[in-house]
Amino acid sequence: METIDLNKINSPEDIRKMDTGKLGTLASELRKTLIEKLSAHGGHCGPNLGMVEAIIALHYVFDTPKDKIVFDVSHQTYPHKMITGRIRAFTDPLHYDDVTGYTNPSESEYDLFSLGHTSSAITLASGLAKARDLTGGKENVVAVIGDGSLSGGVAFEGLDYGATLGTNFIVVVNDNDMSIAENHGGIYDNLRLLRETNGTAADNLFRAFGYEYIYVPYGNDIASLIKAFREVKDSNRPVVVHINTMKGMGLPVAESHKEQFHYTAPFDPATGAPLCGSPAGVDTDTYADLFAKDFLEQIKTNPGLVAITAGTPGVIGFGPDRRQQAGSNFVDVGIAEQQAVAMASGLAKGGASPVVGLASTFLQRAYDQFSQDIALNHQPATFLVFYGSMFGMNDETHLGFFDLGLLSNIPGLLVLTPSCKEEFMSMLRWSENQRKTPVVIRIPGGNVLSNPEITLPEDYSEAGYEIVRSGSRVALIGVGGFLPIVTKAADMLAADGVEATVINPRQVSTLDTATLDTLRGYDVVITAEDGILDGGYGQKVASYFGNDPVKVINLGLPKQFLNRYNAKELQHSCGMTPEQIAATAFDNIKK
Amino acid sequence: METIDLNKINSPEDIRKMDTGKLGTLASELRKTLIEKLSAHGGHCGPNLGMVEAIIALHYVFDTPKDKIVFDVSHQTYPHKMITGRIRAFTDPLHYDDVTGYTNPSESEYDLFSLGHTSSAITLASGLAKARDLTGGKENVVAVIGDGSLSGGVAFEGLDYGATLGTNFIVVVNDNDMSIAENHGGIYDNLRLLRETNGTAADNLFRAFGYEYIYVPYGNDIASLIKAFREVKDSNRPVVVHINTMKGMGLPVAESHKEQFHYTAPFDPATGAPLCGSPAGVDTDTYADLFAKDFLEQIKTNPGLVAITAGTPGVIGFGPDRRQQAGSNFVDVGIAEQQAVAMASGLAKGGASPVVGLASTFLQRAYDQFSQDIALNHQPATFLVFYGSMFGMNDETHLGFFDLGLLSNIPGLLVLTPSCKEEFMSMLRWSENQRKTPVVIRIPGGNVLSNPEITLPEDYSEAGYEIVRSGSRVALIGVGGFLPIVTKAADMLAADGVEATVINPRQVSTLDTATLDTLRGYDVVITAEDGILDGGYGQKVASYFGNDPVKVINLGLPKQFLNRYNAKELQHSCGMTPEQIAATAFDNIKK
Repeated sequence: METIDLNKINSPEDIRKMDTGKLGTLASELRKTLIEKLSAHGGHCGPNLGMVEAIIALHYVFDTPKDKIVFDVSHQTYPHKMITGRIRAFTDPLHYDDVTGYTNPSESEYDLFSLGHTSSAITLASGLAKARDLTGGKENVVAVIGDGSLSGGVAFEGLDYGATLGTNFIVVVNDNDMSIAENHGGIYDNLRLLRETNGTAADNLFRAFGYEYIYVPYGNDIASLIKAFREVKDSNRPVVVHINTMKGMGLPVAESHKEQFHYTAPFDPATGAPLCGSPAGVDTDTYADLFAKDFLEQIKTNPGLVAITAGTPGVIGFGPDRRQQAGSNFVDVGIAEQQAVAMASGLAKGGASPVVGLASTFLQRAYDQFSQDIALNHQPATFLVFYGSMFGMNDETHLGFFDLGLLSNIPGLLVLTPSCKEEFMSMLRWSENQRKTPVVIRIPGGNVLSNPEITLPEDYSEAGYEIVRSGSRVALIGVGGFLPIVTKAADMLAADGVEATVINPRQVSTLDTATLDTLRGYDVVITAEDGILDGGYGQKVASYFGNDPVKVINLGLPKQFLNRYNAKELQHSCGMTPEQIAATAFDNIKK
Repeated sequence: METIDLNKINSPEDIRKMDTGKLGTLASELRKTLIEKLSAHGGHCGPNLGMVEAIIALHYVFDTPKDKIVFDVSHQTYPHKMITGRIRAFTDPLHYDDVTGYTNPSESEYDLFSLGHTSSAITLASGLAKARDLTGGKENVVAVIGDGSLSGGVAFEGLDYGATLGTNFIVVVNDNDMSIAENHGGIYDNLRLLRETNGTAADNLFRAFGYEYIYVPYGNDIASLIKAFREVKDSNRPVVVHINTMKGMGLPVAESHKEQFHYTAPFDPATGAPLCGSPAGVDTDTYADLFAKDFLEQIKTNPGLVAITAGTPGVIGFGPDRRQQAGSNFVDVGIAEQQAVAMASGLAKGGASPVVGLASTFLQRAYDQFSQDIALNHQPATFLVFYGSMFGMNDETHLGFFDLGLLSNIPGLLVLTPSCKEEFMSMLRWSENQRKTPVVIRIPGGNVLSNPEITLPEDYSEAGYEIVRSGSRVALIGVGGFLPIVTKAADMLAADGVEATVINPRQVSTLDTATLDTLRGYDVVITAEDGILDGGYGQKVASYFGNDPVKVINLGLPKQFLNRYNAKELQHSCGMTPEQIAATAFDNIKK
């Protein structure tokens, strides 16, 4: 069989020149190269392996970039990047990190949006289509959505509106029967029914919304895809093309272990075994594991305890085995954070004890539900926030810097900030068993730390700040994961003869003014928090001391969408290492 | 015909004792009483008149409060309040204000949630159902959704999840063919098709989601409703009951002017004429009118300009006539704020100039779209925020206190805060014609003010603060609608011999540190903003001056869900009248 030199593919034009017969070879080469990079470098594995043929067919049929394709979840776009001028980032290990893991307009004109939060492609595309119609354009507008992202509310809002456009509007539904884990929800039952009936079932969600509908049973067959896309190209009304693809296609371990190979670290492509094991002697517990293990114990005596995830069970420590053990006490609502949060209000009102685990970056999709359904209604649900930290995910689309201010500024939400595993477990246990207030527990970033010395109150809704260490002139308030860091700074100051007061605020939703008042007369109060300064905790302290002579210095992150930053460098650039904090304190002592 | 003494109806038990034949009389009496109150007092008119029969039938068939009914939009629950122990608030003018306009658990155990933001009933009910299933309960759980609220993303997420419950779960869709204005979206075309086919069309959104389905063509016929509800009572799987009701039923002017009579001030029930006209000589312009009139002029030369509303065209000044004039340059996406905001990103990317008008309280449903689709993607869309003020809506579910911090803490969003109509129009015109940045314009609360003296820069993305008046020792920074208020305070201080500096920050998303630095050496800086203090503007100023001797005093609202407050009293309790601000400044001058 003739081979193709991938490095000579500079744009989709080079593909559109090929005979269709050659596209199968192209798919094989792309997939082989993908597996080489993924196994050496890690990344979103299954989603991309499943989309090789569809992406080739899309660029073959549509006249990109004039025709516009919006990808969602855009972690499915590695093959798209490979054929739109970025092949070196896949063929040359030295250039592996030249591209991000999502569509990114600063990389290529073929990438229309930075899109990592899922579910908004149909909506974004509806805007492109409307702009085209207003300005007399004729191009095709295509939204590609799948791999679980169809369950987000904004996807339905987009489907609902898009149906009314009355002009060219093409929605490609990539149905691989999976989200990150298995899919949940009525819509997926409908997709299954459509697959089982070869697209002919009377119950058809897309027709019900008002779309024309085409089913492609072999979504990894380029000829079928080309035929379908040609059929809808230049159509003058909204149409859905439902393609049935195989997640992980072409890599046996990824085909058979779809959840594990959704996203992977480097692995042996033959066996799937990870290339980097945990070093011997290191405790590999995570906060997610601590929670999940404890949860499985608790439900033995508390049948109303229920754990909820919005499509990311791994984030909260629930792999397939634990999900099975938890049974009906575990709920995956799919990528649908609004459902996860508001449902918890109903659960709590009904007498159950819901614990919802969310990644910081995604919980913001449910801000209104936190505000209205939870806080305004005083429902005692527990929310665990993972990756709310500079030491979490570092893609610009997946930052965990914003939740602290976002949630702590909602009236009536108690936002707890544990600093170690003992405090986390104590807060969790208290929250699961109280009926007074909604509680957010913001899990610290980085490795699990232990601090057996920590003081654990009976009732976190009434606890004030913990005075970890009493000093004078200098007070260091370390929020959550920054408590051990400011404590180190205090050690350094002590070595220089300065005894600093160290405070664990425990929560960031109200100020413990009684404790803060004991700091009047100090030279300087330094706050350190793991989130942006704007709207966060430290600014509240600064405002409280606004008419007091004590100096207040707030340490935290700048209000920016950082991208693929180095966490240690970021910490340093914000003046947040123990050494820097000690130096800042020292410099602000009255001489 | 026998009459019924409504004042003797203390609970649904009293209705369940009645012969079904008597329920028609009950409906007539309730409707008559409703019209009396609505015409004298104002309120949500059409939605409640349409739901009288359905609410009677629900309480007749279901064993409330053991069986649980969640209403959405809960502005449809006046008849529910009338038969659940709160009749005096409808029959006795002295008690008209004893009840709020939404379900409210503090009023009655029959009200399960404070729910005013629409669309979350199915989700909340899914939590109640899951809690029941976990704890061995047997009650019916019913979500009543309609009057436009089915288009919100969380409603679809709820439908999607609810379909998987596999136990008793009843969704009543109140289809009155209207939202506040006419409905938009594929789902409403499907509802129409179902009405036209008496529920028999093959394309059926609810069946496609996995629900059993019953259609009730005469949703104002009690016997039909009772029959349908009896059929689904105690069912052991998810089912949708689609009822076709008439908005405004029984009041001819409300039946024929559905949008106008969605919510009304007091009116003459015979003619529909408002009882309180505008006093002679008062300029009744609103910011919404200013925008809408200007928009209709602009589109004559700018075909890419497009106004977007999420189901509340009246909020942005677009009644039926103006919508018709705007033609395809006006888009109502229905109650679907996520769609409105993310679609604007697509429009801007496609070269159009979108202007999205949103009420402060509802924009929070699209926080993630503001962050990801707009700000991260740098799309030059314009957002007008209405009622972002203590002088706006005052129900606990509809507060406008939270948007300032929420939006200004998102990186890359320029949040402008005009203080008068000249500044508003200048900002609007600039934003509509720039391609640099996403822009939020937070419209001031209260009446439209004019200030011909105001300085209007060329480019608001580069403009610093406006020094309205130069003084010394005291600086007053008035955000938006508080600029004229602090200016009055400065007048009072001048009368006492203190020349205060008055600053118009123009925007609250970045600090103009060059201007702030000129205030070092002052005695006191006072900030005043129309929103909660937590996470807002003033705290950023306090943080900036944290290690400077200048005193900073932040004025704003407490972080609370206030309910039906008096705005003037609230302003006073926050120390935000001109007199109080002047006194605070005076007290903090170094003596």
